Amino acid sequence: MEQPQNTPRPRVVIIGAGFAGLSAAKALRKADVDIEIVDRRNYHLFQPLLYQVATADLSPADIAWPIRSIFSRQKNVTVTLSEVQDIDLAARRIVTDTGTIPYDFLIVASGAHNFYFGNDWADRAPGLKNLRDATSIRRRILLAFERAEVAATPEEQRRQLNFVVVGGGPTGVEMAGAIAELARFTLARDFRRIRPADARVILVEAGPRLLPAFPEELSDKARTSLEKLGVEVWCDTRVEDISPDGVATSAGAIPAATTIWGAGVKVKNTASWLDIETDRSGRIAVAPDLTLPDHPEVFVTGDAAKVPWKDGQDVPGIAPAAKQQGRHAAQVIANRLAGETTKPFRYRHAGNLATIGRHAAVIDFGRFRLSGFLAWWLWGIAHIYFLIGVRQPIFVGLSWLWSYITYSKGARLITGDRQPPAPPDTPPIQLPQPEQGARPH
Amino acid sequence: MEQPQNTPRPRVVIIGAGFAGLSAAKALRKADVDIEIVDRRNYHLFQPLLYQVATADLSPADIAWPIRSIFSRQKNVTVTLSEVQDIDLAARRIVTDTGTIPYDFLIVASGAHNFYFGNDWADRAPGLKNLRDATSIRRRILLAFERAEVAATPEEQRRQLNFVVVGGGPTGVEMAGAIAELARFTLARDFRRIRPADARVILVEAGPRLLPAFPEELSDKARTSLEKLGVEVWCDTRVEDISPDGVATSAGAIPAATTIWGAGVKVKNTASWLDIETDRSGRIAVAPDLTLPDHPEVFVTGDAAKVPWKDGQDVPGIAPAAKQQGRHAAQVIANRLAGETTKPFRYRHAGNLATIGRHAAVIDFGRFRLSGFLAWWLWGIAHIYFLIGVRQPIFVGLSWLWSYITYSKGARLITGDRQPPAPPDTPPIQLPQPEQGARPH
Repeated sequence: MEQPQNTPRPRVVIIGAGFAGLSAAKALRKADVDIEIVDRRNYHLFQPLLYQVATADLSPADIAWPIRSIFSRQKNVTVTLSEVQDIDLAARRIVTDTGTIPYDFLIVASGAHNFYFGNDWADRAPGLKNLRDATSIRRRILLAFERAEVAATPEEQRRQLNFVVVGGGPTGVEMAGAIAELARFTLARDFRRIRPADARVILVEAGPRLLPAFPEELSDKARTSLEKLGVEVWCDTRVEDISPDGVATSAGAIPAATTIWGAGVKVKNTASWLDIETDRSGRIAVAPDLTLPDHPEVFVTGDAAKVPWKDGQDVPGIAPAAKQQGRHAAQVIANRLAGETTKPFRYRHAGNLATIGRHAAVIDFGRFRLSGFLAWWLWGIAHIYFLIGVRQPIFVGLSWLWSYITYSKGARLITGDRQPPAPPDTPPIQLPQPEQGARPH
Repeated sequence: MEQPQNTPRPRVVIIGAGFAGLSAAKALRKADVDIEIVDRRNYHLFQPLLYQVATADLSPADIAWPIRSIFSRQKNVTVTLSEVQDIDLAARRIVTDTGTIPYDFLIVASGAHNFYFGNDWADRAPGLKNLRDATSIRRRILLAFERAEVAATPEEQRRQLNFVVVGGGPTGVEMAGAIAELARFTLARDFRRIRPADARVILVEAGPRLLPAFPEELSDKARTSLEKLGVEVWCDTRVEDISPDGVATSAGAIPAATTIWGAGVKVKNTASWLDIETDRSGRIAVAPDLTLPDHPEVFVTGDAAKVPWKDGQDVPGIAPAAKQQGRHAAQVIANRLAGETTKPFRYRHAGNLATIGRHAAVIDFGRFRLSGFLAWWLWGIAHIYFLIGVRQPIFVGLSWLWSYITYSKGARLITGDRQPPAPPDTPPIQLPQPEQGARPH
């Protein structure tokens, strides 16, 4: 089989095929380097639409691409499916579960995971960071309606029909809106013993308003839109405990079978690999060229990097920022190999957007703000535009069009190992049989 | 909330929402009965296309429908997500993990699962009966190529690139053809250290020819088509053992990391629920009206039923037969409630079909036989026609068109809990690093 070349070229190793890692590898497509992308999954995930997998609008394959097929024609890229265990800065190599990989340049783009502020709530309130989270949330939401349908007592039925979403950022807002729509429209006719529209969706936010990164005017619009869908918005409310029975908050307890976490993420093991200090969120402070202090050959990008922006704020952990950082790291490498210098990284903020159900969105472009139906269309077009390739945009567009017209959802499958166990205090359920006494025999 | 009626009506309970159960419920849509469908999954699965989920052509949601949404407008149907544990024939009720359900008529349509002839091979050679099987097979096939790419030795690489399919029926023939195409076309450009086209696909059949239910002429055509795709067909070969290292056969051992089972299915626990004798495959002999001896109110349909057909053969375990039996059971119930009798069940055989890759199929309509490209088109049109509703036919048709044109596959995601453990004898892998000695520093 052909080997592209035999002469040694600088080796660029990229940890993680998220937005930052992918952009870096693509920006190096013409560089005279060998790139190795290391990821523990075989796909790149379009995280901004992940909540739509959780709410059964889209299938996993609609928003994920095999990393290999993205780079099948970029011959200087090798993809390795491995889990990183350590980084040996002195020897310039990374240690993975399938072996060690040497590098001349390293781009760390390993992303973030859900963070529960030290609490043991991961099993009780799944977050929304990967496909497994999304299918797990989908399973829990759909099973809650199933359990309500066969509940033995009105209390248990109520508990199954209560959904708590923790965190009023874009993830929480989008999840709450989508669950409310699922209950009120998609499932409306599908049950016989319960009315899915009786479901309560409660969005709990510790701060005084939703979407704190947006202007206050748009926070208010988002709240109004959610309330129109029937979502209860509880601001200034702290979550004190999450148990299988429900959620204890500073504003009272909510019996709820399903809780979804959108309140915090933290950088993965990156700092322990690098043996370095981080901020509270696990992010690593980098030099203006995104490299590590004393290690100009190691770049940290995306969610893992703490990069100053303006007014004391850091660059936000969103896809456009990750892409810009990935491209910048690639540029620094290319320039350095050519003996040139590079200007420090400067973040260009395009805006913030969040969608609420199928009819509203809020968009903040700085001077230009938009909400409502037009914002929703713009949101949809922007997201289709950023999907990779040709197939996914067509299929996602068609799925949206389909469910927009019919209010049905294409991916309402409960998949996974088993039904999660019922909470320990639930008695065995006896199905209500309204006709029991009067049956012919 | 509205209750469709308050007067007691005969209760028809249907166990299983496969082809037989679904057809029975639909055929009773105008009957004056209350129908309760009990299934442990929330979806109906179009099993004939399941192998395309296993080979990454389709997503699970393309071939599965929520049972509830199928019946959302048929008001005499209630759907209950429960696992059946027993049937109490004397008391006329079924026992499930969420309670007991009384019936006046019971239709048992619980289907079949993989059967390994008493061997403990389920973990080593997954079969293809449900969505979990399909995504598990997909994960194994795609991971085998990933492992070959990082294999430490040529022997391990070889083992990872060997795929054994056991059983030369339609499932085995379709799987073998699809894996061969995946290796030769879809993955062709995606790896750097291996050539996916070097994969060997070996189809092992104990009998003298493939597709024993088809005329010999079509068996030969299927074999020729498979061999053109590079599949090795080993007929007259018995499987003696399946281990994590590979498959031992009467024609020699095959080191192989991936083995797929298409050799046998057996009826589920149905007989033990009913406390009744069965044939070797677990099927239950039924009266000409598909009822149990001494229990005219209990019907057994689909894979679970042993129904004589012609020439000493039984009705085959295929979708059209299951649908006919489901409809017949419904008809008997409706007629009996109207005080009428019903003619005994008579199976109308429409034909057999099997497809081989993206360019060939074999079809046996009795007097009329077809093979090759035209048969493949007919197969595709027939299958799209039998998909339920409007959405899935459109999306499956588009997926096929897309992969037909581009040779890419839309659903190449490795999902699931974790990578399966490496076989015990595999040493830790050191990645080959061709440039290791000559690196700049």
